[in-house]
Amino acid sequence: MTMSRTERMVARLRDLQAGTPDIEASAVVSVDGLIMASALPGDVEEDRVAAMSAAMQSLGERIVSELGRGTVEEVYVRGDRGYVFLRAVGMEAVLTVLARSNAKLGLIFLDMKRAADDLAKLV
Amino acid sequence: MTMSRTERMVARLRDLQAGTPDIEASAVVSVDGLIMASALPGDVEEDRVAAMSAAMQSLGERIVSELGRGTVEEVYVRGDRGYVFLRAVGMEAVLTVLARSNAKLGLIFLDMKRAADDLAKLV
Repeated sequence: MTMSRTERMVARLRDLQAGTPDIEASAVVSVDGLIMASALPGDVEEDRVAAMSAAMQSLGERIVSELGRGTVEEVYVRGDRGYVFLRAVGMEAVLTVLARSNAKLGLIFLDMKRAADDLAKLV
Repeated sequence: MTMSRTERMVARLRDLQAGTPDIEASAVVSVDGLIMASALPGDVEEDRVAAMSAAMQSLGERIVSELGRGTVEEVYVRGDRGYVFLRAVGMEAVLTVLARSNAKLGLIFLDMKRAADDLAKLV
């Protein structure tokens, strides 16, 4: 039995979370706001993650362009109860990661870059 | 002669930039998107910085709230030609910083936090 593309994306998301325990949830979302694959705990709604990810990535693209910072590579939002990270997966999708507030940023950025590179081949 | 509030805010922004040379521009913007003080190079438009900052901060607040990360503390967007950083200044304003692509993030986060604390007393 071969795995479907979605199954392979989910497996890659689970790898990401296994390697970086401060990551609590992750998903691949299309730029128009639809879930392509996810590894989310039961209390996180897929549709909400998808809609917010697409909106944030789109505004991130616009702000770096309008303020002369080139093209967007990463967006991060720190809340007092944790982080949201976004990174483009090719041209059509976004990798979204939710992490705990004590997460080590350097590790998460590195692991997300690797995951996004792998996921871009599956989208 | 005493300095006006705006002059004191601008002086604090200039201090921030003098202490962290990777910062190229900074501004204090009201949450409804109007400039309160700025230290921007000639090629950066105030109105554009103000509008984009308010929009990004507002969406940052929404994403951390919707995805269970508490209340927003910091937003950062990395482009291939540099960074945009945002940090709340009290409840009514946002500190926006534009930095070079080789900026040291840890230093910028720390210096922005100090600047935002000082600016909150002036807003």
